[in-house]
Amino acid sequence: MRLLSLARDLRRRRARERHGLFVAEGVRAVEELLASAVPVRGALAAPALDATERGASLRHALEVRGVPLLDVSDTDFASAADTDSPQGVLAVAEQPRTTASDVLAHLGDGGCVLLLDAVQDPGNAGTMLRSAAAFDAAGVIAVTGTVDLWGAKVVRSAMGALFHQPVAHAAWEELDEAMAGTGAELWGADGAGQPVSRLAAERPARLVLAVGNEGAGLSQRARARASRLAAIPIAPGVESLNAAVAAGILLYELRPEALRG
Amino acid sequence: MRLLSLARDLRRRRARERHGLFVAEGVRAVEELLASAVPVRGALAAPALDATERGASLRHALEVRGVPLLDVSDTDFASAADTDSPQGVLAVAEQPRTTASDVLAHLGDGGCVLLLDAVQDPGNAGTMLRSAAAFDAAGVIAVTGTVDLWGAKVVRSAMGALFHQPVAHAAWEELDEAMAGTGAELWGADGAGQPVSRLAAERPARLVLAVGNEGAGLSQRARARASRLAAIPIAPGVESLNAAVAAGILLYELRPEALRG
Repeated sequence: MRLLSLARDLRRRRARERHGLFVAEGVRAVEELLASAVPVRGALAAPALDATERGASLRHALEVRGVPLLDVSDTDFASAADTDSPQGVLAVAEQPRTTASDVLAHLGDGGCVLLLDAVQDPGNAGTMLRSAAAFDAAGVIAVTGTVDLWGAKVVRSAMGALFHQPVAHAAWEELDEAMAGTGAELWGADGAGQPVSRLAAERPARLVLAVGNEGAGLSQRARARASRLAAIPIAPGVESLNAAVAAGILLYELRPEALRG
Repeated sequence: MRLLSLARDLRRRRARERHGLFVAEGVRAVEELLASAVPVRGALAAPALDATERGASLRHALEVRGVPLLDVSDTDFASAADTDSPQGVLAVAEQPRTTASDVLAHLGDGGCVLLLDAVQDPGNAGTMLRSAAAFDAAGVIAVTGTVDLWGAKVVRSAMGALFHQPVAHAAWEELDEAMAGTGAELWGADGAGQPVSRLAAERPARLVLAVGNEGAGLSQRARARASRLAAIPIAPGVESLNAAVAAGILLYELRPEALRG
């Protein structure tokens, strides 16, 4: 399949799943992709790429790596891009074939896996992936109902965090099987739970931290599996924190010993 | 000036400053606006508003409040709206005439004012305003170089946080004058600073917390005024946290006693 039509096709989740591919858009995301071990199939460039020095260097880096590079018109490029201001470059790359079991295999004592439970906003999901990497999580699992982590907007806001940590999609049943025997315990983020600063002393050695949907919060399935609900106390009259900020604070409070300053 | 042309005009920062007005877009933002004391000048509605029950209730609430409501076509509405999916409703309202001194007048012992130092992304700025409200900050000051806090995208991601706390724009000189004699101390967010968890014990009674630009970090002007630089330790090899997540974690670590669970 020609690269341009492939890139266009990959804007749909189903096509990404069928091909096992994803698209990284923008100079920064493609730079991060090249700096990772993720295999890159090809790239599209529009004239805008060469307008900046950083863009021109990226073109050079793609050539040096032997990535097939197709120059297209602004119109064709726009027809394939899925984010705002993609800066004249996108790359098609292979989704790592990571399962929930693979992610949990990285979970050692003191570690944490972040579980996205129907998080819907791509920017929030990407920001959560970035926070998980920053707080040295063992990886991230997205259960059914969550936005596709390989969508271009998520990839872009993750700022490379998708390329350097194990990440998987899973159904709840698959997660249950993967967790069995690992000794991992599931905690959920919930405004009606106990303050996380007090709970931190009870942190299990192996933690799976579930954060729920932006509007609806944790799913019933997550609640049924959670041994603790952790809250961030906020001022009366304020409805909630942004979901990605809340996830960041919980990951921070429950971070591994090595990051405790 | 007719409401439609006024709303169109208000997409430009200069027009917002000249008129002292701003636009809130989307059902949630307009609901929050009506629940606040901010005077509303008028609203535009497109057919989409009446497609949901919540939208229809909002129309009713606008009518009850006596807000002049203009029904316009989808095309006219789109020509005035500035955010994605504005859900068929926008309202024009008055910017509170709050100065940096007004904000600092709310800063009591144990309190914090959030200082935005050239934060550029409207979504980040809005999320920071929301976190400031959640952690009971005395208010938010945006110094020169920061995105306009009254832009439609900031208003929308602030989720009402702009309407319930004192917020001001200021030049550095104005901030200096406003801080003089208040006993407030300025701390800056900086990845190369000391871990905030250790610094927390030294927290001044009255704190002004500066967070910098997404790419460039704190400005020289902020650094020159900061008595401490606070960092959030992250895993080696990870470049940074999202700016709004970092601000949220710092506000959390330095939160007032009443929110310490």
